[in-house]
Amino acid sequence: MFGAGDVRVENVPDPVIQQPTDAVVRIVRACVCGSDLHPYHSMAESSTGRRMGHELIAVVEETGADVTTVRPGDFVVVPFVYSDNTCVFCREGFQTSCQHGGFYGNGRVGGLQAERALIPQADGTLVVVPGVDPDAASDSLLASLLTLSDVYLTGYHAAHLARVRPGQTVTVVGDGAVGLSAVLAARTLGAERIILMGRHTDRTDLGVEFGATDVVAERGAEGIARVMDLTNGEGSHVVIEAVGHMPAYEQSYGVVRPGGVISRVGVPQYESAPVGFASLFGKNITLTGGVAPVRAYLEEAIPLVLDGTIEPGRVFDRIMPLADAPAAYAAMDSREALKVMLTV
Amino acid sequence: MFGAGDVRVENVPDPVIQQPTDAVVRIVRACVCGSDLHPYHSMAESSTGRRMGHELIAVVEETGADVTTVRPGDFVVVPFVYSDNTCVFCREGFQTSCQHGGFYGNGRVGGLQAERALIPQADGTLVVVPGVDPDAASDSLLASLLTLSDVYLTGYHAAHLARVRPGQTVTVVGDGAVGLSAVLAARTLGAERIILMGRHTDRTDLGVEFGATDVVAERGAEGIARVMDLTNGEGSHVVIEAVGHMPAYEQSYGVVRPGGVISRVGVPQYESAPVGFASLFGKNITLTGGVAPVRAYLEEAIPLVLDGTIEPGRVFDRIMPLADAPAAYAAMDSREALKVMLTV
Repeated sequence: MFGAGDVRVENVPDPVIQQPTDAVVRIVRACVCGSDLHPYHSMAESSTGRRMGHELIAVVEETGADVTTVRPGDFVVVPFVYSDNTCVFCREGFQTSCQHGGFYGNGRVGGLQAERALIPQADGTLVVVPGVDPDAASDSLLASLLTLSDVYLTGYHAAHLARVRPGQTVTVVGDGAVGLSAVLAARTLGAERIILMGRHTDRTDLGVEFGATDVVAERGAEGIARVMDLTNGEGSHVVIEAVGHMPAYEQSYGVVRPGGVISRVGVPQYESAPVGFASLFGKNITLTGGVAPVRAYLEEAIPLVLDGTIEPGRVFDRIMPLADAPAAYAAMDSREALKVMLTV
Repeated sequence: MFGAGDVRVENVPDPVIQQPTDAVVRIVRACVCGSDLHPYHSMAESSTGRRMGHELIAVVEETGADVTTVRPGDFVVVPFVYSDNTCVFCREGFQTSCQHGGFYGNGRVGGLQAERALIPQADGTLVVVPGVDPDAASDSLLASLLTLSDVYLTGYHAAHLARVRPGQTVTVVGDGAVGLSAVLAARTLGAERIILMGRHTDRTDLGVEFGATDVVAERGAEGIARVMDLTNGEGSHVVIEAVGHMPAYEQSYGVVRPGGVISRVGVPQYESAPVGFASLFGKNITLTGGVAPVRAYLEEAIPLVLDGTIEPGRVFDRIMPLADAPAAYAAMDSREALKVMLTV
C-alpha cells in the first residue's frame, strides 16, 4: 500500500531464512482484513510503501536450524501475530503481547498478502492442520481454516474474554466479518439470545444462519431503544463491539445491563472514551477485549472446523487471485464484498 | 452539608415509617467516607443543604407492616445503597443497580450520619449481625462491622471483580481506607504479592499489616518504573484503583501487565479516559469495577469479622461524637485522620 486507496502488486525478492527460528512458507490462501481498510482510508502517501496482509494458511517450504515442530510440506495456519509461545505472556494466553513476537509488515518481516512469506518464531507461531492436503481440499474447508488466522478467532476472543455463558443475552454491534464471527462464537458458547446490530441485509442474513436470534437495523438512540425493548428493559449481559468507531462504543454502553461486559475487538479508532460514572462505573460495566491472541485458541478450533462443527469460512463471499488484490480492497471498501479470499 | 467545607449538625424531625417496606433504625456507629470529601471540596452553596452519610450499623426500632426479616431490637449492618434484593439485577449480584433501590440523602430518604434513619426496602437491605449485643461489643468489633457497610466491602468488590487468584501480583493505587481495604481483600483471596502505592507512612504501615508485601511511595512515571522493576518488567496481574482521579488511572494502565485487569472503586472524578490501542486495547487490559454492591457480600463477610479472620475496622483511627461531625470532616480532609467513626 502506497497511500490511501493505492494498493499495488509488486515483485519483491523471495524471503529467505535469516534466523534459525524462521520458516519460509508458500501461500495456500490469504485475504483482506477489515482492519486493512483503516490505512486504505487514511494512509499518507509513501514512496516505499507498506507490505500488507496478516492472514494466511500456507505450506512450509523451508525451516531454520532450530525449528522442530514444523517441517517442509506441512500445511499450517499462520496466526496474525507471531509469537514464541513460551514467554510468560504467551503462557498466560496473550501471545499478541509475546516478548519476542510482533506484527507482519514491519521491519524484516513482510506482509502475508504474498506468494511466499517469512515467519519468525516458527515453532511458536505455526500450527499444523493434520491430515489435510491443501491441493485437494474444498474451497469451503480452506476458507474456514483461513478464518482461524484472524477473523473467526477474533470474534471468538471477544466472546471468550466476555465469558459468554449459556442462557445469556449477547448483543453484537457490527455486521462485518468479525461481528458475524462473534455471533457464531457466542452461539458455540451457549448464548441463548444473540442480537445482531447491523443494517446490511445480506450480512445480517448470514448472521441469522450463524445463530443471531434478532437483528436490529436501527443505530444510535433508536438502536439502543430497540435492544432495550427486546431485553425487557434490562439490557444485554454481553455486548461485543466489532466496529472500532465511537458510535459503536456509545451504542455498546447504551445497551449493556448493570454488571454486564462490553468486549471490544474492533480496533479502536479513538484513544479516549467515556468510562466514568454515567457510562461504565455507575453500572459496574466491565470493558474488555483487545488484539486477539488467536494462537491461544488454534488447537481447539482446528478440529471444530475439520469435523464441520463450525463453518466460519462462510464470511468469505469472493475469491480473487493475489494479482487482483487492488480490486479486492476496492470491493471490500465499497461493501460489494464482505470478505475476499486471495489465492494464486 | 450546605456547601464546600460547610458541614453542620442540625435537628430534624425523627424519621417515620412511610411505606410498609420501610424500617426506622437508631445509630450504633456511623462514619465519614472518602467520597463525602468530594462534595466537601466542590459542593455549591445551598440554603436547604444536603443530608450526608451512607455508612451505618444500627438497631432496628420500628418496621413497616410488610417487613419480615428484621424486627425491633435487631442489630444490623446497613449497606450504603438500599435494594429489594429480589429484582433481576439484585439476583445477579449487582444490588447497587436494584430496580427499586437507591442512595441515601435523596428525596424522602435522609442521610445516615444521624441518630435515626429511614431504611427503605428493609427486608432486602438490612442484614442482622447474629449474637452480638451492640451495647456490650468492643469498639474494635463495632469498627470492623461498620466497614461492612461500605469501605471494606468496596475494597473487596474491587478484588472480587478482578478475580484475584492465588499466586497473582496485585497493585493497589491509593493508601486511603478503600485502598487499605483492597489490600486486605486481595490477601484473603490469596494474592502472592501486593504492591501498595501510597506515600503516607502511617497508612502504608497499616497496609503492610493488612498484607502488602511492597510499598511504592513514588508517583507518576517514577512510580510506574518502580512497580515494573518489582515485577521483573512484566507488570501486575491486577491493579486496584482506589482513588478516582486521572493520575491514578494513568498509573494503573502503566503498571498492569498484558491481559491484566484494572479494577476501579475510587469514584471517577472524570468521565472520559484513555482506553484505545495505546492504553488498554493493545495489551488486552480489562477495565472493571464500579459502585460496590456490598449487600451481595454481607452474609459471607459478617462471620469473618465475628470470628476474627479479618479486622478491617483498623482503618478507623478516631472516634468522635456525631455532634462533632464538622470536625470529623475537617480531620479527614486535612489527612489528620484516615477515617473517623461517629457515635452518639
